[in-house]
Amino acid sequence: MGGPEIREYFSEERASQVVGASFADTPDPRLRQLLTSLVRHLHDFVKDVDLTEREWGLAIDFLTRTGQTCSDVRQEFILLSDVLGVSMLVETINHRTGGTSTESTVLGPFHMVESPVRELGDNISLDGKGIPCLVSGKVTGPDGEPLVGANVDVWQANEDGFYDVQQPDLQPQGNLRGLFSTDEHGRFWFRSVVPRFYPIPDDGPVGQLLDATGRHPYRPAHLHFIAAAPGYQPVTTHVFVADSPYLDSDAVFGVKESLIRDVAEVDDPALAAKHHLPNPFHTLTFDLTLLRQVQWAP
Amino acid sequence: MGGPEIREYFSEERASQVVGASFADTPDPRLRQLLTSLVRHLHDFVKDVDLTEREWGLAIDFLTRTGQTCSDVRQEFILLSDVLGVSMLVETINHRTGGTSTESTVLGPFHMVESPVRELGDNISLDGKGIPCLVSGKVTGPDGEPLVGANVDVWQANEDGFYDVQQPDLQPQGNLRGLFSTDEHGRFWFRSVVPRFYPIPDDGPVGQLLDATGRHPYRPAHLHFIAAAPGYQPVTTHVFVADSPYLDSDAVFGVKESLIRDVAEVDDPALAAKHHLPNPFHTLTFDLTLLRQVQWAP
Repeated sequence: MGGPEIREYFSEERASQVVGASFADTPDPRLRQLLTSLVRHLHDFVKDVDLTEREWGLAIDFLTRTGQTCSDVRQEFILLSDVLGVSMLVETINHRTGGTSTESTVLGPFHMVESPVRELGDNISLDGKGIPCLVSGKVTGPDGEPLVGANVDVWQANEDGFYDVQQPDLQPQGNLRGLFSTDEHGRFWFRSVVPRFYPIPDDGPVGQLLDATGRHPYRPAHLHFIAAAPGYQPVTTHVFVADSPYLDSDAVFGVKESLIRDVAEVDDPALAAKHHLPNPFHTLTFDLTLLRQVQWAP
Repeated sequence: MGGPEIREYFSEERASQVVGASFADTPDPRLRQLLTSLVRHLHDFVKDVDLTEREWGLAIDFLTRTGQTCSDVRQEFILLSDVLGVSMLVETINHRTGGTSTESTVLGPFHMVESPVRELGDNISLDGKGIPCLVSGKVTGPDGEPLVGANVDVWQANEDGFYDVQQPDLQPQGNLRGLFSTDEHGRFWFRSVVPRFYPIPDDGPVGQLLDATGRHPYRPAHLHFIAAAPGYQPVTTHVFVADSPYLDSDAVFGVKESLIRDVAEVDDPALAAKHHLPNPFHTLTFDLTLLRQVQWAP
């Protein structure tokens, strides 16, 4: 009886408006925003490349196989997010430092167990493989104040390129993991081995993607850190070995220039003896600066 | 020895360039184009909404469950593509008609078996449920020339909202499917029942998404068609019933205005008797126009 009924049917031109409008009644405004934006960008992609029906079918098949490769000990969609740089982007935009604190990088999939509590100076290399290395550093706040009793959680792959959780039958439990507490000057130190580069799991769909695009699956040598202290923002990061292969082509884009350190050989018999290390040995120094936790006004 | 080495490490600003550059050695230029564009749009989405780590984790979990819901008889990623309008967009950009031929719409997941060959006038409703309906039409070329012996493949859900392949134990094999050949005037006709609206499978992750966004899972009443003739471009489409619920909110965005037809009740005892139908009965008329196949110059 009134004016003509206006129906917005789907068309190439109106596609993302029509689909976006279907989410208008979403109770959660954030979910509505996420889906509306996702649809717009996804449709823009399809239009930009003029996606063919065959390519769409291959994408459906790839995503299906990616989901079906996941299990209790394998997360292939995280790997996909990693090799497309999405994980690093999410990590980076959620931990902007403003250049005043240690930069973050990806957590990675191997922090699935609690690190064993260890004493400063302990050796985390339980399998004895690799080049001995003294790792040390200091945790401070933004004004250089030492953070006493800060937690420093570290983990790394062994000489063969695997984390302990990947080789429960071959590595001692807790190999190359440790949870330390900084001393009265905010310092930490422990014995380990020089980290090695290693490949991400590449026997699934993501490995096929890397293969089809001429990309290798390697990550440059690194040691994982989570540093945390009450009243400060924790940081999840790595320290990278300066002369490692793949430093400029990390399969998951985790490298930031500020996180690269030289691992020097030291010839100092007295220092070696003090730390129960063979002489010569290697050293890796990594200081971490944490931002203060934001105090919200009431 | 030369100038300083230039390394492009990841940063928020350079993210899509750095990741895009990782695909520079992709042997297939089309794959390189697809991935570079995908990364750009995906990163733009993450930046536009400032995706949180928690939301990223929920997305990883959703995609994983979507992949794991897929089986031989269920394709949850196609459903996801459908409810985000991606399937319709791909269909539409790959079958632009220029307004001169019958518009296409999605194939859907239920054309998984060959339709049984039937004679003009046959009844495809083998279970006898529903409101009897005479379906007829004409297949022509762009200048109105009748396409004699064109294939007309049709399939629809039954009165309960299921296709035969969804209910192998409840419906006769080939129920509501038929492959017809047009007569010497390009005409086809057969007996069926008035199509009904029905829900897409909504007991998986995609159903949860619809639920969380206040969307229903229904498709308006429709009858699927594939029309094909030698020398012409085949068309995959539906005809929609004009007064069906959900016509303006199809869960998969398949409706195009040009594909909607009235399904009128006819009171004509002579015509009913001629077609072996009870009187009164319903009629649905759908003419299809195919484009000529493009002839490529040598």
